[in-house]
Amino acid sequence: MIIVLKNNVKDAEKKHIQEYLESRGLKVREIIGEKETVLGAVGSVSIDFRQIELLPGVSQVIPISKPYKLASRELQKEDTIFDIGPVTIGGNRVVVIAGPCAVESREQIIESALAVKKAGAVILRGGAFKPRTSPYSFQGLGEEGCRYLKEAGELTGMPVATEIVSPNDADMMKEYIDIFQIGARNMQNFELLKKVGSMGMPVILKRGMSATIEEWLMAAEYLLSSGTEKVILCERGIRTFETMTRNTLDLSAIPVVQKLSHLPVIVDPSHGTGLRDKVLPMALAGVAAGANGLIIEVHPDPEKASSDGPQSLYPEQFEKLMCDLETLSSVVGKEVS
Amino acid sequence: MIIVLKNNVKDAEKKHIQEYLESRGLKVREIIGEKETVLGAVGSVSIDFRQIELLPGVSQVIPISKPYKLASRELQKEDTIFDIGPVTIGGNRVVVIAGPCAVESREQIIESALAVKKAGAVILRGGAFKPRTSPYSFQGLGEEGCRYLKEAGELTGMPVATEIVSPNDADMMKEYIDIFQIGARNMQNFELLKKVGSMGMPVILKRGMSATIEEWLMAAEYLLSSGTEKVILCERGIRTFETMTRNTLDLSAIPVVQKLSHLPVIVDPSHGTGLRDKVLPMALAGVAAGANGLIIEVHPDPEKASSDGPQSLYPEQFEKLMCDLETLSSVVGKEVS
Amino acid sequence: MIIVLKNNVKDAEKKHIQEYLESRGLKVREIIGEKETVLGAVGSVSIDFRQIELLPGVSQVIPISKPYKLASRELQKEDTIFDIGPVTIGGNRVVVIAGPCAVESREQIIESALAVKKAGAVILRGGAFKPRTSPYSFQGLGEEGCRYLKEAGELTGMPVATEIVSPNDADMMKEYIDIFQIGARNMQNFELLKKVGSMGMPVILKRGMSATIEEWLMAAEYLLSSGTEKVILCERGIRTFETMTRNTLDLSAIPVVQKLSHLPVIVDPSHGTGLRDKVLPMALAGVAAGANGLIIEVHPDPEKASSDGPQSLYPEQFEKLMCDLETLSSVVGKEVS
Amino acid sequence: MIIVLKNNVKDAEKKHIQEYLESRGLKVREIIGEKETVLGAVGSVSIDFRQIELLPGVSQVIPISKPYKLASRELQKEDTIFDIGPVTIGGNRVVVIAGPCAVESREQIIESALAVKKAGAVILRGGAFKPRTSPYSFQGLGEEGCRYLKEAGELTGMPVATEIVSPNDADMMKEYIDIFQIGARNMQNFELLKKVGSMGMPVILKRGMSATIEEWLMAAEYLLSSGTEKVILCERGIRTFETMTRNTLDLSAIPVVQKLSHLPVIVDPSHGTGLRDKVLPMALAGVAAGANGLIIEVHPDPEKASSDGPQSLYPEQFEKLMCDLETLSSVVGKEVS
Repeated sequence: MIIVLKNNVKDAEKKHIQEYLESRGLKVREIIGEKETVLGAVGSVSIDFRQIELLPGVSQVIPISKPYKLASRELQKEDTIFDIGPVTIGGNRVVVIAGPCAVESREQIIESALAVKKAGAVILRGGAFKPRTSPYSFQGLGEEGCRYLKEAGELTGMPVATEIVSPNDADMMKEYIDIFQIGARNMQNFELLKKVGSMGMPVILKRGMSATIEEWLMAAEYLLSSGTEKVILCERGIRTFETMTRNTLDLSAIPVVQKLSHLPVIVDPSHGTGLRDKVLPMALAGVAAGANGLIIEVHPDPEKASSDGPQSLYPEQFEKLMCDLETLSSVVGKEVS
Repeated sequence: MIIVLKNNVKDAEKKHIQEYLESRGLKVREIIGEKETVLGAVGSVSIDFRQIELLPGVSQVIPISKPYKLASRELQKEDTIFDIGPVTIGGNRVVVIAGPCAVESREQIIESALAVKKAGAVILRGGAFKPRTSPYSFQGLGEEGCRYLKEAGELTGMPVATEIVSPNDADMMKEYIDIFQIGARNMQNFELLKKVGSMGMPVILKRGMSATIEEWLMAAEYLLSSGTEKVILCERGIRTFETMTRNTLDLSAIPVVQKLSHLPVIVDPSHGTGLRDKVLPMALAGVAAGANGLIIEVHPDPEKASSDGPQSLYPEQFEKLMCDLETLSSVVGKEVS
Repeated sequence: MIIVLKNNVKDAEKKHIQEYLESRGLKVREIIGEKETVLGAVGSVSIDFRQIELLPGVSQVIPISKPYKLASRELQKEDTIFDIGPVTIGGNRVVVIAGPCAVESREQIIESALAVKKAGAVILRGGAFKPRTSPYSFQGLGEEGCRYLKEAGELTGMPVATEIVSPNDADMMKEYIDIFQIGARNMQNFELLKKVGSMGMPVILKRGMSATIEEWLMAAEYLLSSGTEKVILCERGIRTFETMTRNTLDLSAIPVVQKLSHLPVIVDPSHGTGLRDKVLPMALAGVAAGANGLIIEVHPDPEKASSDGPQSLYPEQFEKLMCDLETLSSVVGKEVS
Repeated sequence: MIIVLKNNVKDAEKKHIQEYLESRGLKVREIIGEKETVLGAVGSVSIDFRQIELLPGVSQVIPISKPYKLASRELQKEDTIFDIGPVTIGGNRVVVIAGPCAVESREQIIESALAVKKAGAVILRGGAFKPRTSPYSFQGLGEEGCRYLKEAGELTGMPVATEIVSPNDADMMKEYIDIFQIGARNMQNFELLKKVGSMGMPVILKRGMSATIEEWLMAAEYLLSSGTEKVILCERGIRTFETMTRNTLDLSAIPVVQKLSHLPVIVDPSHGTGLRDKVLPMALAGVAAGANGLIIEVHPDPEKASSDGPQSLYPEQFEKLMCDLETLSSVVGKEVS
């Protein structure tokens, strides 16, 4: 922790600040400059830095330790790379996860699975529990949806991913699925993170709409410290003042995260933009920016989708995307899984 | 729903759009202007408006129905006013809820309760379950904390409020507390909202850090449609680019919400600013803006608080606030409960 | 400047960083903690801190000097208080500046001046040059507007304030007006700041829509370092994701600015909210938060206003506001000028 | 304009609203639905829509005309494509503009020009007037800088672009440069826009840090309506809550703008991210998202740059970027100029 003192700090104030810090087990060192004096305080104790900020004579307090450990590249230098069934995630692989927003019926999810598999996807997605802004909207098929999803995954040889919205569902869902997904709205639902982490299975962790990159890594820290090592970060757009897109896809977050953390990071251009005709360019942009993969909504008949139809690709559009991806990946030194 | 057509829309396109809407049960009417043509489509069916936006010839689609019903002032014109034990909330009352961020011990919460009661608070707050950004921080006393809180409330004759973080705790907590609080990070944890709403008890619903006013009212709609009528909205700051305050307290939201909804709305200047010396001015500002109450963190010894000490008032500061509030309330035609 | 080193920094890297800093005239001191090592570097040289951030072994660089000097309370401890004609600004005075958005005609501005004077305003405002988002909107009466404004001010004994949009107008405007206003969109129009500052006259500096408090104070620094000492800061709302108000009035900025700077700070609730019925509550909230004054749009006939009619008060509403203000000011230890 | 009426609107209120609109020359039509009644009002008159919003019985007013005309694709369906000297901009070309942040000396800009030309850039950039946040920072070489820039451009056969900060400089600058650049901070400096537009020369218009896409197109409208047809839009990052990058590069804006407007749009990854190691991935991402070009800061010796060194590429890095760009462009059906 760095404590910047006021220009006109009194000796008694400075002494009190030093004693305050030392009495809490911190080692303090003073740096006197021409324009300012700062105290450096280090140690393994954690103090709410605002506490110090309120002491007389203090101008500003700057915390310096990163709050996340397990997620940090300082702890683990090499990229985290792991397998989910036949699929390798991380490193120089570009993994494509695709499927409909919601599992609507057995037929629909099987049809979707066949279509995305054919085009080159390697993991199947589909929502069984849908967190909806309105209590009056379709809330998903629940366990029935998980069952259909599993069947579609087995039929096509793809691992399956779906969103979990309550800790109470975790044990049931484990029987059906291969990857848990934590949605943006639940990124700081810490009870959910602890439960899901304790399952030890792969997790896709979406970035919250207003989460800083640090908070996102702290949410990953909850998962990692609860018992799983297989965390996939997913950028899906942040909330800004711009209203012409549903969210603002923050692709700069990708190189930033990759420098700070060893975890793989993928992009969700479907939620990030909210409109089908923006999905293709932003998917390519995500991979160009260095993403380790994509998660894409594809629906056999988007006009009839029960949710998020307008941001779902037609199967033909998805095929086009997979082709472009193949060429693009080699430009950035990657390989489509 | 209003569909603005492109200037150069073709007749066939227009016809297709009209048929599309009518086939879904909407009544369509055309308005031809000098500069633009629009279609108005009304009916009780709900369609994802982005679906229409993707049809050829469409320039823009504008939804016009408000998605919340029970929370809306159109459904209920008069302010919602209700009692919690001896306390009346809503209308022209200014209710003050106070107490420490976290229940740390039996002694600490009793001491806090006595102090805030003496100064004029009418409801006691204190956290038993703390949702913390870091998995390594103090997470609260849990049920033990609830028990102490209840004891402190009974001793001082005040109803008690505490945050709930998991649907699984609701039945246990009901035995101890009078008011559930939903934190900002859980504002769109819909499973939690449904469970808490079903308890039929009063709920304080904090606005999410990046929640629009409409999303906030939709979250209230989840509570109202699940079985409670006693919802108190709480503005606690939104996330913006400004970093000198923890959040940006959005006081304009108060008159906006009061025009749209009949629910009481209070202000949390402690979390809204994050620093003790900003709490007093922003508390007064909140009531001047028309708030129906305040929720304030007060700690008998803030320097020793296990969480959020720097934003907790000293008991003397809280007394000063209550005095100022008394005078201020009369200026805005209100009365401190 | 504080340089946080990577956990796994090599000795050679550390040495290179130290030499780099020392070769640029900085004094360097090392602080070794259990979890991290930091270098403190102080001196009067200015280096772009990102330069250091790119050196091998560096984890993070934290600048510690405040970039503003003349605007800082460290340089001047006491509040800046000054007179504009008969009006005292700063300290414990609440000054009310009022008038129409735009000067539309001689009659309109005289009528406005009489009305706001009668209700208790002490400075007259009115726009002669209007920066409009659309090139097709009314752009103001220009010099003619300034002349009418001066006449209305003299008639009612009030100093007058108006917005300047081009450095080329400064010398002409000086003949007519008492206070220059820099609009939010021009807060970082540095050529304009330098010219206006050099006039040595009072200036109202509106906060830019996306300006941090630090950038706002830096813009004040431009004015102060160019030759004027009479700068009034004006909070008028920042841009956030919320769309129900035109801007989000950031009232927490008031106590924050007052701690950092000695300059008076006022609030513009008219632009801050954009709607008449929100102006009264937010004006009171601003003063409750500690503002040194208000700038309010009042129009004798808002429905006929050529711009911003919907956010202009009727004269009767303004009278009501002035009454409430009188009572409120005493609560916060202030006095309406 | 669409006027949504309140559910409980009275007949007299509705009549008054209709008369109000018709008296102002609008044609009004009513649409009665099951849940709501709306009025559609069309015509060539412009009314501040908030005026209507304040009438009794009105729930919401929705403007439907796009405020920009000349910039709109409705007016001109085909992409704007134009030549600047030997360079073609727009359509399926990817144009690369490169050079140092500031012109620091004759030698430096010539060295820069040779380096970027060799790597494949076709337009040279360099700042002569630098709008700096601090009045104490280097403000550029002014006319001398323009002269050096022109010399470097002629030597290498490249048109040159530089930023203009004051309308008073336009006539002087015209003698030296080929393309004016409007910086983000001046995007709504309307006096500057009008003057620069009237020069009839090509203009790069950077998006303001907090400008919506609509405001950006309105600023382009100022240029177009003042006399130039050669406007290049430039996305350079918007201000959000995320602080790990200087700005958040909004790449989704590219497909959005391309649908709304016929103007070419380029990306500035240097300012958009603020750090050299993020420039390469974000430059590629920009072109993958569909941009018509890039503007990149390159410096022969970034560590010695007088401004923005940390975000400037080394010449070798720029060469690598140009190579990658060549391959990538073909994936998205484009060609590097």
